[in-house]
Amino acid sequence: MPDIRKLLWPNSVAIVGASSDTRGLRGRIVQILRSHPYKGAVYPVSRGETEVQGLKAYKSVADLPPTDLAALIIPAKFVPQELEACGKAGIKAAIILSSGFAEEKGETGPALQREVQRIAKQYDMAVSGPNGEGFTNTAAALCPTFSPAMDPGDVPLLPPAEHTRGQVAVISQSGGMGYAFFDHGRPKELSFRYIVTTGNEACLAASDFAEFIIDEGKTNAILMLIEDLKDRATFERMAAKALRAGIPLIINRLGASEAGARAILAHTAARGDDAEYRALFRRYGVIESDDLDEMVDFAAAFILMGKRLPASYRVAIASSSGGGGAWVADACAISGLDMPVLDDATRAKIDVYLPPYGCSQNPVDVTAQAIHERGYAEFARLAAESPNVDGVILVVTGRHPRFLLEDREHLIALGRDSKKPVLLWSYTRPAAVCVDLLSEAGLPLFTNVHNCARAMCVMADYRAARAAFLKG
Amino acid sequence: MPDIRKLLWPNSVAIVGASSDTRGLRGRIVQILRSHPYKGAVYPVSRGETEVQGLKAYKSVADLPPTDLAALIIPAKFVPQELEACGKAGIKAAIILSSGFAEEKGETGPALQREVQRIAKQYDMAVSGPNGEGFTNTAAALCPTFSPAMDPGDVPLLPPAEHTRGQVAVISQSGGMGYAFFDHGRPKELSFRYIVTTGNEACLAASDFAEFIIDEGKTNAILMLIEDLKDRATFERMAAKALRAGIPLIINRLGASEAGARAILAHTAARGDDAEYRALFRRYGVIESDDLDEMVDFAAAFILMGKRLPASYRVAIASSSGGGGAWVADACAISGLDMPVLDDATRAKIDVYLPPYGCSQNPVDVTAQAIHERGYAEFARLAAESPNVDGVILVVTGRHPRFLLEDREHLIALGRDSKKPVLLWSYTRPAAVCVDLLSEAGLPLFTNVHNCARAMCVMADYRAARAAFLKG
Repeated sequence: MPDIRKLLWPNSVAIVGASSDTRGLRGRIVQILRSHPYKGAVYPVSRGETEVQGLKAYKSVADLPPTDLAALIIPAKFVPQELEACGKAGIKAAIILSSGFAEEKGETGPALQREVQRIAKQYDMAVSGPNGEGFTNTAAALCPTFSPAMDPGDVPLLPPAEHTRGQVAVISQSGGMGYAFFDHGRPKELSFRYIVTTGNEACLAASDFAEFIIDEGKTNAILMLIEDLKDRATFERMAAKALRAGIPLIINRLGASEAGARAILAHTAARGDDAEYRALFRRYGVIESDDLDEMVDFAAAFILMGKRLPASYRVAIASSSGGGGAWVADACAISGLDMPVLDDATRAKIDVYLPPYGCSQNPVDVTAQAIHERGYAEFARLAAESPNVDGVILVVTGRHPRFLLEDREHLIALGRDSKKPVLLWSYTRPAAVCVDLLSEAGLPLFTNVHNCARAMCVMADYRAARAAFLKG
Repeated sequence: MPDIRKLLWPNSVAIVGASSDTRGLRGRIVQILRSHPYKGAVYPVSRGETEVQGLKAYKSVADLPPTDLAALIIPAKFVPQELEACGKAGIKAAIILSSGFAEEKGETGPALQREVQRIAKQYDMAVSGPNGEGFTNTAAALCPTFSPAMDPGDVPLLPPAEHTRGQVAVISQSGGMGYAFFDHGRPKELSFRYIVTTGNEACLAASDFAEFIIDEGKTNAILMLIEDLKDRATFERMAAKALRAGIPLIINRLGASEAGARAILAHTAARGDDAEYRALFRRYGVIESDDLDEMVDFAAAFILMGKRLPASYRVAIASSSGGGGAWVADACAISGLDMPVLDDATRAKIDVYLPPYGCSQNPVDVTAQAIHERGYAEFARLAAESPNVDGVILVVTGRHPRFLLEDREHLIALGRDSKKPVLLWSYTRPAAVCVDLLSEAGLPLFTNVHNCARAMCVMADYRAARAAFLKG
């Protein structure tokens, strides 16, 4: 097994095919790489240019100083010879961003891919791709990719460290989709450790990267988008490790439909049987989802509430909006959650604060008036104390920050002290200060009601699957 | 039947219970009302203050100049006497924002609600509420509500008129949820004509408002959140009118689950049988959805593509991302759409532009390279010409605007000339300029893949339901 650490944590990176033209992908990769504070050396390799974007360019791979990783972004037909040059130069890791391999019609592309496999094996190189979009290692500020999601100046790669309760890794065959997870999750203050796009997986596959990441022990949830599994034994070993470590695998396998299967065959030459995948995933407590937003929301919920997963499927709902409470109740029922009426002792404690038109049954219709007087957190705290429930969904409106901000200390205490999971659904688009505050409090904030309800449900599923697995 | 026009289009509004304290709801309603350029007169009525927020205040309803609409925001027990005073003063419309009526435990609240009904009938008044959150009429810039969604300074009430292809109305028993539709839809450049929140519906019900809005003929889609139907005959008459006029009703009925039913009973004293609703909705081509984001997305799709609904369920997918194409194909299959392989003539026209690793089958894997060279629009246009399909889903990345902006003229032509519906899914969060451009082009932009696929599906459903209904 080649050394993935050389690939994800190189001290130096060569860009083979680098260009000064930042309108093209070969220029973009250099531009993006240099726009982040990566501490290693960057060596452009260019046949035509002596300097690329202010960096000295090398004529060929053979001229390079000692290099850990080569990123190849050149026409497919030149990839084998350059990869071989890398191998001869002692470069132990490569990513191939070029397309035109096994996914191409005809004989040439697949033959080139077999060449890549042969060379990687011969020189014991860790090779990712071809037909990938590179990767990102946020801790190293290393982004050898042309993904526009890695353009700087929008949001920093990482949210504030003091709010970070854990990190997520993305592993995706599709480059565009892989970086789309980051694009959707980062504004929600989700902290990404890696985004790895694996393309055709001629050599290293998603499971190999996942296993490295699990063994490394710094990632708390893994989002995977796969088109097929190259090696089932590796997947099983990896998935077992993940489940033992309590690192949820949140996976969408593309190609479940006939047209989807046609698409992945054309995209990365992938094939697979849906029923087999389902059975395999079930065995290892994999959380399946076919919705990008939902997958990101699940990851956030596990990162913040993973140490207090619901013991079962009984949930309390507390809402400032009566309609909002009913809506989330319907969503919970669709997800398979139960909403038992709260016990009398808990109801009595809640009733003290409610106006006569409020209701403490479940959903707790707290009413706007009681929220104005007591804030949100107290009602979630009281509901969570009911022995009849295993978790709480708190319905808020995050558009106007006043009632959340005034409740700051209690929300932070709730996030810190609650022994049961508390998830928040904001039925309005939350203001940035509310996102910040709830991130600081470690309370998962959902804007989609079904994602919120389903998150509670899959957390309970995962707890049960893990318990069964550990029991053997 | 009392005159709803007096309620929604008053020349003068009295706020009974108005206050100078803008931290409370009685002050907020005046503040919000005055922050929009409503041309009519606003008369605060206050027992304690002679001036409210710079306006002369009236001691009692009896002192008011002739007034069209009264908004009552006073404790429930005073509502009947003030409503009666309104009736005596010749005020023909009222909204009651107070809570504490039929939704309250015990006898007092329900008795107060019966009093409201009696007075409204006696004076032939159009009365909305109680327990509502008021309404908004954007054309009149009239917002008698305390909803924070109507705070000015964030986005204007209406998007640019030149981009507006049609308007949507919201009718919701829940105030918080009613305005949540606006909050979610407005940033997507959806144009709202009315947001009406109806609360307990003691007098006027959602169907009454919907019928007024349909008769008025200026609204192209109606979003409804209902807890129950007060009068089935009115609903059926209204729904038949809507279907005849081609105005889709997009409805979520809360309370489908046991806990949801418990919640709506406590919220607005509503009850209902789910199976009955389902059958009723099916008869009139009602589009049911239990997801707020999806409902808003459906409305946008109908507004922009309502004149070219898909003839059937066959869809072409064109994508710059291979993984994105596969993802949308799976989503389409889940929705019940078909994705036949395109006909040879269409494929030949597309193949001219594709690199060898692209694919024109369906999904069309356009590849980023071909998008860079030809833009997005041309591929959607070509795919739509295939006799094998009834609509097109175009997968784009809206984060970096370059390729969409460079394709501006073609996208506008596509939105204008396409005879089949074209929906766009952006797998990254679209930049504001892209939202603007696609709004100008009249192309519906989705950020959730399932909402996109389901929109195509419900448009085909609606076309079929309407055809069957018109045939009798």
